[in-house]
Parts: sequence; structure tokens; C-alpha cells
Amino acid sequence: MQGKKIKISIEPIGRRIILDSPARGLDAIMEAGIGIKSVCGGKGTCGKCRIIILDEDNARAFEPTGQEKKVLSADEISHGVRLACQHIFDRDINIYIPASSLSEEQKLQVTGEEKILKIDPVVKKYYLELERATLNDLRSDMTRLKDALDKEYKVTVKNIDPSVLKEMSSIIRKEAWKITVTIREGEIIKIESGDMTKKCFGLAMDLGTTKVAILLVDLISGRTIDSMGIMNPQISFGEDVMSRLNFAIQGPDNAERIKGVLVDRINESVTDLCSRNSLKSDDILEMVIVANTAMHHLLMGLPVKQLALSPFVSAISDSLHVKAEQLGIRLAPGAYIYLPPPIAGFVGSDHLAMILASGIRNMSGNLLALDIGTNTEIALKSGSNITSVSTASGPAFEGAHIKHGMRAAPGAIEKVLIDPENLVPVIQTIGDKKPVGICGSGILDSVAELLKVGIIDSRGKFVNDSAYVCRDEKGKNRYILSEYNEKYKDGAGGGAGEASAAAAEEKPEVYLGLPCGNKDISINQQDIVEIQLAKGAMRTGIEVLLENAGIVFKDIDRIIVAGAFGSYIDPKNVVNIGMFPKVPLNHIRQVGNAAGVGAKMMLVSMAERKEAEKTAEEVKYLELTVFPSFTDHFVDSIKFPAPEELI
Amino acid sequence: MQGKKIKISIEPIGRRIILDSPARGLDAIMEAGIGIKSVCGGKGTCGKCRIIILDEDNARAFEPTGQEKKVLSADEISHGVRLACQHIFDRDINIYIPASSLSEEQKLQVTGEEKILKIDPVVKKYYLELERATLNDLRSDMTRLKDALDKEYKVTVKNIDPSVLKEMSSIIRKEAWKITVTIREGEIIKIESGDMTKKCFGLAMDLGTTKVAILLVDLISGRTIDSMGIMNPQISFGEDVMSRLNFAIQGPDNAERIKGVLVDRINESVTDLCSRNSLKSDDILEMVIVANTAMHHLLMGLPVKQLALSPFVSAISDSLHVKAEQLGIRLAPGAYIYLPPPIAGFVGSDHLAMILASGIRNMSGNLLALDIGTNTEIALKSGSNITSVSTASGPAFEGAHIKHGMRAAPGAIEKVLIDPENLVPVIQTIGDKKPVGICGSGILDSVAELLKVGIIDSRGKFVNDSAYVCRDEKGKNRYILSEYNEKYKDGAGGGAGEASAAAAEEKPEVYLGLPCGNKDISINQQDIVEIQLAKGAMRTGIEVLLENAGIVFKDIDRIIVAGAFGSYIDPKNVVNIGMFPKVPLNHIRQVGNAAGVGAKMMLVSMAERKEAEKTAEEVKYLELTVFPSFTDHFVDSIKFPAPEELI
Repeated sequence: MQGKKIKISIEPIGRRIILDSPARGLDAIMEAGIGIKSVCGGKGTCGKCRIIILDEDNARAFEPTGQEKKVLSADEISHGVRLACQHIFDRDINIYIPASSLSEEQKLQVTGEEKILKIDPVVKKYYLELERATLNDLRSDMTRLKDALDKEYKVTVKNIDPSVLKEMSSIIRKEAWKITVTIREGEIIKIESGDMTKKCFGLAMDLGTTKVAILLVDLISGRTIDSMGIMNPQISFGEDVMSRLNFAIQGPDNAERIKGVLVDRINESVTDLCSRNSLKSDDILEMVIVANTAMHHLLMGLPVKQLALSPFVSAISDSLHVKAEQLGIRLAPGAYIYLPPPIAGFVGSDHLAMILASGIRNMSGNLLALDIGTNTEIALKSGSNITSVSTASGPAFEGAHIKHGMRAAPGAIEKVLIDPENLVPVIQTIGDKKPVGICGSGILDSVAELLKVGIIDSRGKFVNDSAYVCRDEKGKNRYILSEYNEKYKDGAGGGAGEASAAAAEEKPEVYLGLPCGNKDISINQQDIVEIQLAKGAMRTGIEVLLENAGIVFKDIDRIIVAGAFGSYIDPKNVVNIGMFPKVPLNHIRQVGNAAGVGAKMMLVSMAERKEAEKTAEEVKYLELTVFPSFTDHFVDSIKFPAPEELI
Repeated sequence: MQGKKIKISIEPIGRRIILDSPARGLDAIMEAGIGIKSVCGGKGTCGKCRIIILDEDNARAFEPTGQEKKVLSADEISHGVRLACQHIFDRDINIYIPASSLSEEQKLQVTGEEKILKIDPVVKKYYLELERATLNDLRSDMTRLKDALDKEYKVTVKNIDPSVLKEMSSIIRKEAWKITVTIREGEIIKIESGDMTKKCFGLAMDLGTTKVAILLVDLISGRTIDSMGIMNPQISFGEDVMSRLNFAIQGPDNAERIKGVLVDRINESVTDLCSRNSLKSDDILEMVIVANTAMHHLLMGLPVKQLALSPFVSAISDSLHVKAEQLGIRLAPGAYIYLPPPIAGFVGSDHLAMILASGIRNMSGNLLALDIGTNTEIALKSGSNITSVSTASGPAFEGAHIKHGMRAAPGAIEKVLIDPENLVPVIQTIGDKKPVGICGSGILDSVAELLKVGIIDSRGKFVNDSAYVCRDEKGKNRYILSEYNEKYKDGAGGGAGEASAAAAEEKPEVYLGLPCGNKDISINQQDIVEIQLAKGAMRTGIEVLLENAGIVFKDIDRIIVAGAFGSYIDPKNVVNIGMFPKVPLNHIRQVGNAAGVGAKMMLVSMAERKEAEKTAEEVKYLELTVFPSFTDHFVDSIKFPAPEELI
């Protein structure tokens, strides 16, 4: 193959690297500017630069090294997982970089760049040099402007924003009748003096119940130039959707208040995001907001009483184009906010955006796409139909209702392995900080590992003859992930995992039946029940969708997992706790914040916006609770897989 | 003709009366519910029930009675003018009731009813009984509503007003899912519970520099159910258009202030008008405002600097549909205000409305239509072209810049005759009150009569050998209309005219050369110059239009005179001072507040609204000052007609 170019196709980023000569995988990926994690500097010890070789032939060709056999599980190896630092790319291959191997910045862009979009935003700028008014040419300023747009660009103007109209005549005369006009669907939404055609920006927002992600996008290049994640300040009126809706309907001013705090926070964030990019909020010409239906209604000041009471219908399921000013959000005075259609009371435009970003509408086969959260919305594409359900999966995977649960923040245990020999936990914390709690992926790992090593059984019960299990004051069992240790120093001696392992080495005895230390971080029986309920709800949603479509889980060609949590989880463990049916691991794709990416797609491309609206019309919402076999599925889904079903 | 029905066709009202047997004209007209003036009870002494017999044969058949010969001039009689009380309608005839013979209420409706309109307003109400939402029918409220509108009425909804959306869900559920929906061009602008389809109202406003007329219109029947005239409160920022524009551009807040006072006054008036008709401002679903371009721009908060400086271009010449809320005007929260297109900087949408109401666009022949005011806009329809000019006729006809001038208010001298024998003035005041000044029509009459009896000559100079002329402290001549008389008692001994005649009888001597009493009401040389300038400006506009169209004044088939002032003037005198060319008097039609009527037409009929927009595109604005022979025409137009040209 000497002299021939080597083509490396990289999913899910949708990038292709051309190598002139063979190169080490890690180096090739990094040189292409793709953010891949690597802590040990390519020694193969940290195991962070995991990639999946997609073609089976190639996977076989890249034989695992000794280092890989230490760091990767046999399962992973058999599914094509490798470390990018351990192999030389010497032939054309297709690889997949799991979200957990991507840097945060890279992750944000995942899927958005999976598809190369034609940049065609709803707002467009046109530069004009107008003829001056004279006593022999008495056309009104607006007529003059319309005539010029028609003549130069064949653009027909239908109307003009009233606030723009107020400034029009003076702006036209400011720089010798040279102006830049911004048009949105026939409406003039901005006029600037001089040539400002290169300055065109928009915002895409994923408005979640807990978190809000904002992307600042250049509408000329389509690039995300900055992003910001903030907490939804409405949390002070209730943690979950229902309590916020109930707050909003209790008093006449409540709806205004709950809307107001959010709008204020958005305005602050937009100002920050703009100023750190040398922009003004005036430069933002369009914004797309996706949200679950409750957040959507609260932001828009829509009626929510009917959304909080059975049969839980939304006020509106159309797309909305609202002047930002009308919502109280400060962008360019004429700018609009586009809110894509919510699908149903419990399936919002965030789900629609996720479906759009996943691309399932135009893929063949049977495809599942889901965004794991307090409510998990799941879409099944089968044949030409897309059906969606919403499952009340609860906040367990966000760390709530779990004794030592916490949000994914520094110090949270995010990865857990249990040594099958000595049953000692090996943990990894976010930011390699001293462990302070367990976040969603750590909880999921813990339960899966406890199940695998046999500490708990398929009903979720602690099996008494397990090690590292202590007993609390009420006589209930707990499994200790991290023992409280006064000597433990933050950051000392490298990662928490190693520190914990070191601690375990110092104290190798088995805790069985011993009293628990109150400051230890552990998993208890109730935690396991919470996980059973959460994963049971999701699995029920999947099973109902499959039954409704008349297919079984073996027919599923791909499972697309979106959302922040979905990016961090270990697909193997998701299957092992029975959240997903047992599908080949390379059928599971983690795509990061797909809702945000979908919002961005609707911001930069009219074609994608239309695609989304078409999708919204097609998606059928299935109300789980009225589905005949719902209860049966739920009872079955609570259980964990039997030991022989684990991978 | 015994036994045969008698058909009386009445212009300009457009009514037809059918009589079973011959009847006295005054009785027939009154019984038909048409408001015609009559003070003397049909004795033929007051001369108020003037009508014009339109067919010459009939006019000859109705020979003037002795009483008519006393009250009417020979000219009037020869032009078919008769008193309705003096003749029996015994055959089919076409009569014209001049505006001066119509009651105020009737006058308001003149022209509006000239054409029977198909009532087809832009807002329409639909009653719906919706299917309730259930767990098996989870359509959003909006989708449910749209589906029902489509199914029941084949109406497609495109969007919904945001404030209506906020209330929608609760209103839908208030009266068992029975609602009334108001749609405006695909937008839901109001939702009410129950069947409210019979309650549908709108407002038409003629926003003048000085006066504002508001009509409250039932959009089901098309009837004007009430009206109100108010002063434009912006007068405190300047009497004329230019001083208001200059105020608005002087400081950044001035434009807001000058807009604010008007909006506040409009809101008060709308509230009053509604409450005295047991309505709320919430019940007003649409408003049409016509105005001159400056008032239009100030109300809309549009840029006006370019309107105040040459070449005086308007910011916009498109029609505007603005949410009333956005303008600060309180109607139904979703209601729109429609502003028809202004034609040019000095020819506004009020002129367009006047053209619409005059109906000239669809008439054949050469037609002039004008609305006399501080600026007099004149339209000439010739062939298929309509050309408009604006003349700076000044405020003389509104009583300004005239020594004893005043607005048309009680006590204003509104009619003047000068006895050719003894040169004694016979005056009539508004409301028959004690004379306190002279209003426009009185000034016009005075000048025409002074010319006719030879007190002034065709250059406008006082001819010294005239009677009733006194000399002021500077030695300048004045003609005394009403001598100050302490004994004069308001209302005593009947009308002011009679009282004045009585006073004249007591003191029959000629004032020639005597010093003027300071409290006398008189016409001086400067007043006559003001009238020469005013009528000269208008005549110049007419001459330029005629020259531009390549026709002469003999080609003119009809002159339509609109506006409050135009309703009160004596057509004969208008011709005699040379404001109009010498056309047969029955070619002159006085049509009342045509701008307000035009606004109403655009309120109740979409066809008329479209007609107006089409007209606006067709009307050519002609800038007088750049017309080559403008100055020549102006110099010629200042002079009065020679004695032999008077009628």
C-alpha cells in the first residue's frame, strides 16, 4: 500500500482523514484537530482513547496488544473496541469514537457535523447602494428600498418590523445611502448602514427542566463559535415539571414570575455569551429554542392547567415564530425566536430536535432514538413510521433519590468496576477529584457490576455471601464504593481510582455483615430499587414501541442514545442492567446533546427546519398508560437479566 | 298617472322612495327617514329644505312658487334649486339634496350609503362546539380548534395572537367547549366562550391635523352606530403639520410625547364611545385609520425628519397592519389597526379614502375630487388616470389668519348675503347664536358678495364709493358684517340674521369713511388677500392638473367637494371667487366627510380595501413646485373673476 493515500473515516463526527503514510491512530486523530481524550500520553495505561473498529475484518486485523488486554474487557475487544494509541493506521478503515473518548468541545459538536448541512438560514443579509431621493424621484424610503432589493437580488419584501421602520430613514442617510438589510421570510428585521453582510449570528437553545444549553452560531459559516451551559433558574419553583406547572397555575402572577426568572437568566447569558465574543445582543438575528412541552409553555406564557391535568394536552402543537422582544428576550429588535412544534403534552420539541439530529427519519431499518432524563422520550422508526413514547424514568440517573447520588460534577464517581476476584471496587471520579458522591453513570456501573459479580441477584436483592458489603444501623446491606479515609488527600498519588485501589490494598478484608461507616460512599438496597424502576420504565417504553410496531428487539438495527447522561454511560452496562434489550454493542451510538444539535440545525438550515416540521406531523405519540399490555411489560421490565444473559 | 307608483331617486344618499300617491316633497323625504333640515315647518320662509331637481325637464315642470322667488336667487332657480316644501312630487324624479340641507347625522352618512356595499370585513366570527380532549384524543387545544374550523367552515388558520393563545385553553373549557373564534386573514385574534357571533364591532377614524372623527361600526350590518368628533390634542405642539414635524425631530423624546398625547386621547374617546353603546374596548376587533402623511408618521412613530426637509419623502408608502397593542391603543388584545397606504409626503391616506368614497376611480368622464383644508389635496380623474396634487391653501378657510375669523362653532357667521340695493349685510350664525366671529363659509360668502355688489374689485381692492365700509385707525377699509350692539340679546327676536337686519334698520346710514367700531365684526383688506392666496393655491392646483392632463375646465363633468368645510360652502360663491372654474352648479357635489366614509368602507369591506390599495398604486402624485407653469398659474389664480364672469 506504499505510496497510496490512506483514508480514515471517523464516526460519529462525519470526518475523513487522508494520511500520506501510515501513522499511529492517536496521532492521526489528534493532528486532524479532533478532540480525543488521552491522559497517559499514549502509553496505553489510561484507556481513555477508546475507538471502535467498525468493519469486522479490520477489527480482526488490529490484534489487541498486551496493554489493551489489561485495560479493555474481553467483551469490548470482541466488539472491536481498541485504544487509538496502540495501533498504526495503515489501511482504509472506518472507526467510531465513542462519546466517552471525545473531549467536551468535540462532544458538543457530535452529530451536528455528522451531516454536512447546506447553510441556508431563515435570515439573510443584503448590501444595497440606494439611489438618493430628489424632487423628481419622490418614492418613499421603503418603496426605494423594496425596488432596490427586487432589482439587485430579486428579493420581494412583504413587511418591515415596526422598530426597524422607526430607524430606517436616518440609517439610510447615515452612510451615503449604503445599507445592509436583513430579511426574514419577506420581512425586513434589521437595517444597518454600510456593508455588514459578514456579521450574521444566531442562537440555538436546548431549554431543559434542569439545564439550559446555548450555542452561539455564525450564520454565514454555520459554525458554533461559542457555547454556554446554565442551570434553569425555575428550579427554585420546583425541581420537576409537575411541581412547576402546579406553581404556575396556583396564582395569577405565578406564571409571570416563573417565566420572568428564566427570561432574565437567558438575557444575562446572551449578554455574556455575546460580550465574550465581541458581539452585542443586537447582533443576534435569530434564535431557535427547543424544550419539553412544559418548559415551552411556561416560557411562552401559554396556558398550562390543561397540561397538568389528565388528559395532559398541550395548548398548541404548531411551530411558533415570536418576536424576541415580545418574549422579553433581548436580541436584535426585529429578531424572531423560532419554537419548533411540540409533539404532545409529554413529548416536546427537544425530542423533535433529537429525532432530527439523529437522522433516523431518513435512515432505513428499525431504529430507536432516546434521550435519557427525568422523563425519557423514546422514538422508534420502523418502516416509514416514527412513534414516540414518554416514560417517567425518574431522576435516579441524575443522582436524585439515590442515597449518595449527585449530579455529574467534580468528585462524582462516574465509572465503577468490581474486581471479580476480590470484589474490590475500582472507581473513577469526574476531574479525578476526591470522591464525594455517585453520579448517574457511576450508579449504573455499580448496579451492573454488582449484578455481574453476583453480589445482587436478578431480582435486585443483596446475596448475603458477597464481600465489601456492610450492614447499616437498620440491618440493611450496602456495597461500599469508597471508604471514608481521613488520610485520603485530594489528587495525591494520581486518580481516585488508584487511590481507592490503594486504600483497598491497605485494608483488604471483607466487610460482609460489618457495620457501615456513615461517611462511606455506598449503594444500598433502595438505590437498587430506584434503578430498577427507572430502567424498567425505559425498557417498558421500548417494549411497548416494539409490540406496537409488531417487531422484536432482534429487529433493531441501531439504538441512538442522546443527552449528556447518555454520553457517559457504558453501553455494555446499559444492556447488562436490562435497560436496553441485548443488542450487539456496536449497534448503540452515543451522540451527545442531540437536542441542542437539532436546534442548531434548524437555525442554520431552512431545509432542516422544514424537515423538522414534517417530522412533527408524522411522529405518532403513543400514550403508554392506555396501551393494553403496559402493566405486563412494566412488571417484566423491573427485573434484571439472569446471569447467563449478561455480556 | 293616477294609480301608478311614483319613484323618487335621492342623491347623494343613494336612496329611492316609492310613493303610492302624490305627496308634498318635504313630507315624502321626512317620512322616508331622511334627515332634511326644516325650521319654518314647511311655510317656505326659512329656505333650509333646498333640493336640486336634476332633470332639466322636471325642473321646468316644477315652476317656482312666489315664496321660492323670495328665498332663492334667480341663479339658484335657473339651476334647478327648489324648496322641498313647495312642491308636490307627482311624477318620477331624480333629486339631489345638498349637504347644507341635510341634518348632521344624515350628512355623516352621505356617500357611505351612496354605494350599497357588500359587508365583508377582514374580521369574521365563527361559532364552534369542540370535541372534548380525552386520553384517546390528545390533540393540542390549538390543533383541535383548527380541525373544527376547517371541518365546519373550511377556514384555514395560520397563526394565533400570542395574548389570545394565553387565554385559549381556559376559555375553551369555560362553557362546555363551546366557543366563538374571530379570524383575521388566517390569524385567530379573539376567542370567546359561548356564541358571540352577533357581537362584532370596528372603528373607522379620520385623523386630521386639527380634528379627529371616529365612527363606531357594526361589522355585521355595516351600520355606523355612533360617532364622535374630537380635537387632535397634538395641537399643543404646533397648529400646523410643519411645526409638529419640527417639534418631533428636535429631541429624542419629542416623537414619543407627541404620539403619546394622541394615543391617550384616542383611548379615552374609544372608551367613551364604547361605554355609551354598552360595549367595552375589548369588543372592538378592527380599526381603520386614515390620515395625512405627517399625522400617519407621527402616530406610527415613524421617522419624520425626511418628511420635514426637501424633497419631503415619506418613510413608507405601503399599507400597514399593526397590532393595536403595539401602538398603545386599547382595543381587543388581538385586534389590528389597518393604515391604508399614504400616497406621498403631502398626500396621505385620507386623500386616498376621499378618492375611494368619491367613487371617481370607477366613473367615466373628467372628475375632480378635493378635500378643502389647510392643505387641499385635489385629485383629477381623466381617462383612466388619477393624478393628485397638494396645495398649501393655508388655514384661512378654517378661520385662521382672518381678523375676526373663528372655527365653525356656535355664534360663527356662516352665511352672508349683501343686499345689492342698500348694501346691508344679512347674516346667519351657527346655532342662531349672537355673532362672535366669522367661520370659513361666512368668509367665503362675504368675499363673493363684496365682489358681486362691487364693494371690492377683481384685484381684491376696496372700491371707495361702497357703503357699509368703515375706516380703521390706520386708514384701512373694512366691511362691517355685524355691528357691535349692547342691546343685542342672544336668541331674542329669532335668528341673528333678522336681529342684525333689525339693527341695520335702526341705523340705516352708510359707514363710508367713518371710523370703525373696535368691537364690530368686519372683513378687512388683509382678510381678502388671505382668501385670494388660499383660493389661488387651490385654483393653481386645479389648473396644473388640467394642463397636465391636456384638458380644460369645460371638460370637467363633476367636482366632488369633500370635508366639513366643503359641506357648508355655497357652490355659487366658490365659483364666484374663482376657486373653481365656472362650471354648471349642478356639476358640483358636496359629499361631507368623505375621508371618514372611505375609512369606514375599508373597515366593512375587503373589496373596498383592495380597491383602495389598487387606487394607491395607480394615483400619480404631481409635485406642483416642479411643474413648469406653476408660477404662471399661481399669478393668474390670485385675481378674482371679472364682474361679467360672475353668476
